[in-house]
Amino acid sequence: MIYFDHNASTPVRPEAAAAMGSALAELHANPSSSHRDGQRARVAIEHAREQVAALVHVRADEVVFTSGGTEGDHAALIGAAWAAEPRGRRVAFSAIEHHAVHGAAEVLARTGFAASHLGVGREGLVDPAAVAALPPDTTVVAVMLANNETGVIQPLAAIAAAAAARGMRVVCDAVQAAGKIPIRRDDLGADFLVISGHKLGGPKGAGALIVRRGAPLAALFRGSAHERGRRGGTENVPGIVGLGIAAELAAREVAGENARLLALRERFEALLRASVPGVVVHGAGAPRLPNTVNASFPSARSDHLLLALDSRGLAASAGAACASGGVEPSPVLRAMGVPRELAICAVRFSLGRTTTADEVERAAVIVADAVRLVRSTQGAVT
Amino acid sequence: MIYFDHNASTPVRPEAAAAMGSALAELHANPSSSHRDGQRARVAIEHAREQVAALVHVRADEVVFTSGGTEGDHAALIGAAWAAEPRGRRVAFSAIEHHAVHGAAEVLARTGFAASHLGVGREGLVDPAAVAALPPDTTVVAVMLANNETGVIQPLAAIAAAAAARGMRVVCDAVQAAGKIPIRRDDLGADFLVISGHKLGGPKGAGALIVRRGAPLAALFRGSAHERGRRGGTENVPGIVGLGIAAELAAREVAGENARLLALRERFEALLRASVPGVVVHGAGAPRLPNTVNASFPSARSDHLLLALDSRGLAASAGAACASGGVEPSPVLRAMGVPRELAICAVRFSLGRTTTADEVERAAVIVADAVRLVRSTQGAVT
Repeated sequence: MIYFDHNASTPVRPEAAAAMGSALAELHANPSSSHRDGQRARVAIEHAREQVAALVHVRADEVVFTSGGTEGDHAALIGAAWAAEPRGRRVAFSAIEHHAVHGAAEVLARTGFAASHLGVGREGLVDPAAVAALPPDTTVVAVMLANNETGVIQPLAAIAAAAAARGMRVVCDAVQAAGKIPIRRDDLGADFLVISGHKLGGPKGAGALIVRRGAPLAALFRGSAHERGRRGGTENVPGIVGLGIAAELAAREVAGENARLLALRERFEALLRASVPGVVVHGAGAPRLPNTVNASFPSARSDHLLLALDSRGLAASAGAACASGGVEPSPVLRAMGVPRELAICAVRFSLGRTTTADEVERAAVIVADAVRLVRSTQGAVT
Repeated sequence: MIYFDHNASTPVRPEAAAAMGSALAELHANPSSSHRDGQRARVAIEHAREQVAALVHVRADEVVFTSGGTEGDHAALIGAAWAAEPRGRRVAFSAIEHHAVHGAAEVLARTGFAASHLGVGREGLVDPAAVAALPPDTTVVAVMLANNETGVIQPLAAIAAAAAARGMRVVCDAVQAAGKIPIRRDDLGADFLVISGHKLGGPKGAGALIVRRGAPLAALFRGSAHERGRRGGTENVPGIVGLGIAAELAAREVAGENARLLALRERFEALLRASVPGVVVHGAGAPRLPNTVNASFPSARSDHLLLALDSRGLAASAGAACASGGVEPSPVLRAMGVPRELAICAVRFSLGRTTTADEVERAAVIVADAVRLVRSTQGAVT
């Protein structure tokens, strides 16, 4: 199987898996326990906290461990909005945010908060000027760093500056960007940064919310003083250990991997353009993650195409993995103004650490073959 | 080290750790992905769902995977209260609930919900009649199955019957009970049952919320259709696999382990009573988990005692691990009417699968020795 679905989930680094195995065997105690067994687990967590902090260049005490990206998005958007409640009851987020941000806004709506949306242009970019035009009761703005479907990278520093000028806090879902491009939190200007382990070589079930010192956050999970009162619950020690190792490896390798993947991605796109008539690459005019290609193959519906790819040994995705199974066009592509008939023919290919040059060559042949098949059996798509 | 702190966290079953190792290595895809790699991860999750369902005798589709007990308590209490909002804006819970339930009620308070408390008697038991006396706008009642500090087992069926008679939904935190005593959800009558992996031989970071069919629940994490819309977020595949194996082993072994631990616990208590003057076992007159002893050693403050125990190779806890480090008396013991001077001398010993008869003998000697030391160096405690 050629796995071109690293944005959905990327394999756990063997070094991280090995460390998790040791943690599962040896760190049996609760890190909140005061005895020596408990303190050994505590030390492991604090080491991982430093590893995650180094990935995005923040202080260790700004790292709060979570169960992943969805919890991070909820904890950040809801927690920041609740903490800012005296100043207003409105949040804003881009139309291309991950489902989890839309979901968190739904939860907020139940507690009386309104939401405004920031549209994107044809290349999938948020206009920082739109932030300046948000309603005055907006207290929190959420804009992702890189889109999960297209890989388009947002001008976050400009967006954050526009938000800061109006006293708004910025939540940045960096789930797809972390580990794929270098990140310095202070350069982005975000108050809250959301990271997920399984997108960067760590395990599913572990993530981090980076909380800028002094940025008010009302905890979503409460109880004892876990994570300095910012996230209740016994820490996922093995998951956190794995996330830490993966973060350290990613920090060390991101520059080299970035260049390697970009070359592979460009070769893949060139092969697709040469072998598949009519292919359209979305967001091609914007800065993009080096590993992501979102391409439409007109007259080859993506659900049929994915089946044909899968049967030929190529794993890819139609938009977000979370939405798999549906034939609805991706809201991200619709927000970019992609016509419905093109949007329902979009496939996301996301390369990763295990991807080889040979796989790229073979995958391009498989795609061309599958598109031909689907087009011939399907006729016109409406 | 003799580890008598299994209620804080118990070692991961080697079979569970091995299965997690395989999952980390092989199930790299996202279970929401439609391709074959994704479907392999999906199959593993659904197998674990059946294993967890069997532990508490429910249908697999009633099992929702979470990140652990704290998330479970929050998702259940908040989700049930929000879903019942048209009928009232009040929840009730016992005074001895885990911090996470108190924390979830704090979150609810932010969204306009009031809370009522159910007291406990001297043995730590909730009176089912108190449920009948709750204010009429109460929609959800939370009572744990077994207390984490004392091991006292609540008369849940009677409590649930009283709640049902008034149309209230019942949330039952079964975190400490699951795996230690046999549980049939339908015998308990709870609408929502909360389970945590690391209390029953599974990993930290994985748990389950059992949602009775037809019991309304507003999801706390939203996004895509994960867990049938009841919990957004990519599933923690290795953690869920480990939880499933641990649940299956626990279901198979609980009856035998129950008898074995009860004999060890009774021997330990007998040794303490024989060798430590003035020892008081809390909740001794109530049904208790077979593995838990919460005992006060008058004139030996628990923080000093725990240090002495730790230095002699015995890991135990003062009340909840989550509250370690503080010298405040346990709210659980205070709710039971234990005087402050006795409550600050309480230590929880919790036995587990790895506990041997020899450890019990040695631990009793260590405790007697440590109590003598602390009493002699400390004098009267106020």
